[in-house]
This record gives sequence, C-alpha cells and structure tokens, in this order.
Amino acid sequence: MQRYFLNKENQIQKEDLHHIIKVMRMKTDDQIEICDSVGQCFLVRLNIDSNTVSYETIASLPEPKKRHYITLIQGLGKGDKNEFVIKYATEFGVDEIIFVEMKRSISKMDETTFIKKRERYLKIAEESARLSHRNSVPEITFLPNLKYLKRTFDHAFVAYENDRNTTLLDKIELVETSDKVAFLVGPEGGIDESEMALLKENNFISIGLGTRILQTEVACLYGLSVIDAVIERKSS
Amino acid sequence: MQRYFLNKENQIQKEDLHHIIKVMRMKTDDQIEICDSVGQCFLVRLNIDSNTVSYETIASLPEPKKRHYITLIQGLGKGDKNEFVIKYATEFGVDEIIFVEMKRSISKMDETTFIKKRERYLKIAEESARLSHRNSVPEITFLPNLKYLKRTFDHAFVAYENDRNTTLLDKIELVETSDKVAFLVGPEGGIDESEMALLKENNFISIGLGTRILQTEVACLYGLSVIDAVIERKSS
Repeated sequence: MQRYFLNKENQIQKEDLHHIIKVMRMKTDDQIEICDSVGQCFLVRLNIDSNTVSYETIASLPEPKKRHYITLIQGLGKGDKNEFVIKYATEFGVDEIIFVEMKRSISKMDETTFIKKRERYLKIAEESARLSHRNSVPEITFLPNLKYLKRTFDHAFVAYENDRNTTLLDKIELVETSDKVAFLVGPEGGIDESEMALLKENNFISIGLGTRILQTEVACLYGLSVIDAVIERKSS
Repeated sequence: MQRYFLNKENQIQKEDLHHIIKVMRMKTDDQIEICDSVGQCFLVRLNIDSNTVSYETIASLPEPKKRHYITLIQGLGKGDKNEFVIKYATEFGVDEIIFVEMKRSISKMDETTFIKKRERYLKIAEESARLSHRNSVPEITFLPNLKYLKRTFDHAFVAYENDRNTTLLDKIELVETSDKVAFLVGPEGGIDESEMALLKENNFISIGLGTRILQTEVACLYGLSVIDAVIERKSS
C-alpha cells in the first residue's frame, strides 16, 4: 500500500499528485494511506478526475504507541554522507537529526547553505519515511558549533571508545519508553578533546559500538538498532 | 595506523604495495599493522627500498576473543545493493555472506557471473575490514537457490514480520558467545511463502526488526547490531 505525507495545510503534495497519477497510474477507487501533519494516518479511497485527486477516508490507521524520542546529533560529514545518514536513520526510527559542524569536520557549512539544502534533505527523509511506513518525517536542523546545543535530554550518549566498565546494552537499558534520548556521532575525523569535554559537562555518556571502528555514516544505525530493540522489549 | 591483509601466501598484496609507497608515501621505519591469512595481526616496521617493501615484526597484536560466527544469508538484490551489503555488513562484524537468488529477486545471477564478480566483492570486503580494524575478511559465496543451503547453525533467524510472542532481544539473548548464527534477509520483493516453509523446516525462527519496514540492504545491520550488543555483554 502506497503511503503519502500531506503538506502543512493537510493537502496532497504536488509531487505526490504526479506520483499517484503518472507513476503509479492509480485510478478512482484505488486506495492509499495518507499521514497528516501531526502523524495521524488514514486509509483513503481515491477519486481521480483528469489531473485532480480527491479522496474519502475509509478508516483511521492505528496510532503507533508513543515511544521514546531520539535526536541524532551528527557531526557534519563530507560528500553525500549527510544524505546517507538522513535516508537510513529515518528508516531506523530517528525523530530528529541535528547536523553540527564539528572541529574535525572536513566539510564546512553555514546557515545559508544549510537552508538551501534543507528542502532536499526533508524530501529524502520523507521518501524514506514513506518506504519504511513511518507516520512522521523527522525534523532536520543545523548548528554551526557544538556549543550552541542548549537542549536537555533524559539520556545523552556519544559514540566514543568503550569505557569497558559497563556495556552498551547496560547503558541503553536505562532508557525508558517515553524518554528523550540524544545520540551523538562525530565526523570522519572523530571528536576533538575540547568537544568531548563540553559533551561531558552536558552529561553525555560515552558508549562504544562494538569492537570494530564504524564509519561515521553508519555508526548511528548501530545505536538506533540497539535502542529500538531495548524499547521494543520494554513496551511489549 | 594503516592495516593491510596479507595474501594466502602471507605476502603483502600488490595493490597494497602501491598503496603503501605511492598513496601513503610511507618511508623506512614507518609502522603498519598486517594481518595474516589466519587472522593473526602484527605491528611491523617497514623497510622500503625503491619499489620493494619488507618489514620486521615489532609485536603480535592481541588476538580478539573468539566470538560467535555470523553467516548472513542475503537474498540477491538489484543494482549495487549487494556491494552495499558487503561493505557495511563487514563493518558490522559479519563472518560470512552467502548471496542467494530467491524467488522474488529482481536481479538474476548464475555461478559464472558470480565467479567473475567475486574478486571485486572480496576487495570491497577487504577494504571495509581494513577500515574497521577487523582481523579477517569475510568469506563470500553464492547459491542459485535456497534449497541448496544444507548447513546447520546453532541459531537461524529470518527477518520477517514479528510474531509478537517474544521480542527480538529475547530471541537474540539465547545466542551464546561461541555459537554459529545464521541471519537471513530476503530480497526487495520479500520472501516467498514456499521459501518461508522451507526455512521453517530448517529451524529458522522469524524475527521482526522493529516496527518499521527496513530496506533489504540495511536490514542485516539492525540484526548484526543487536547480536553484537548482546554478545558484548555476555563476554564482558
């Protein structure tokens, strides 16, 4: 079943109209799922008249259980790594991605460049949310420096060398079903010591992601998987 | 520290000689790590004389604890998805990948095509093993049909809809440190019912990977992460 996200005015988006009519070649009475701007999804029956699409609601789809809220704080990567992170972290259930230019980020970005890229980034997230049957599209923002991160979280983790006192699973099992969780991954060059000091001041706990070295674009997927599996058990 | 894998004759590979001399521009007395064909790694000091490289061993690197052995059985994907799987599953610690042409695989492959591609696949795995500081490169093989899978495993999982009786974490916690584990992921089109029946006959247990639908090329990373986190705790 195809799923589409309505725009902020709760209308089918222009590109999706094209997708429904020209790509999927749907006809009147075909059914799709639509999700509104607050994450409520519906099964609807289409009514297609040349290039206009209207629909009538057949049923509300069950709202997913309210679970933990995960903010990925991702050190800015080079090339298409940021897009890779958006695509797959969305599939793995992230609720929000904050890209941060960190001391060892090879790529640089500023607010103006980010604003230009943001629309494309949100489209990638939306497509990924659609394919993975999520009810909502993650928010994507940018910080030019880690010191501007002024938020508080119930748990804040930073992917760093393992301290070997407790394991990742022990730490992640402290996360409760409705907690706000931050998970920070450094850029290709790693995290500068001054940044680690700042993170520790802000109660970030370092966690190791197994015995291998993971590349920056996939490190978050390890953390998101383990958090998801822990929460799945807690909420079952 | 750069890490290189010796060939089966325990010599530095030709491409690595080029990498050491021309790309990294290393000099006599520079140090690298080398891993032999049985996965033992050494810190060595280089001796470079124009285009020949020899080395003397400074120290044996600690052997990693013998852990579980994970075989990923991956439904053949289209385009560059197979290479994506090799690259990232290697980083996430897989020991062996068996590509299988399944009923709903869109791409087709035969033994001859696979043999042609295998060298390239192993190079991708080796590069990924090098970057993630693994001691060994995973084996990569191909089966033209699932019915030829005649191996036995201590635990065999297939990514499928969640049966909701037990959670993924409960099932994976049954894996012990030295177990042989198989993890099967279907192709884009999913797993045919006849294949699921065959898998169940062969004691494969279906597991759900969270509440979202993961694309075939990243589904294994969810499973590998959770298995790794569970084993990390058991062996700590």
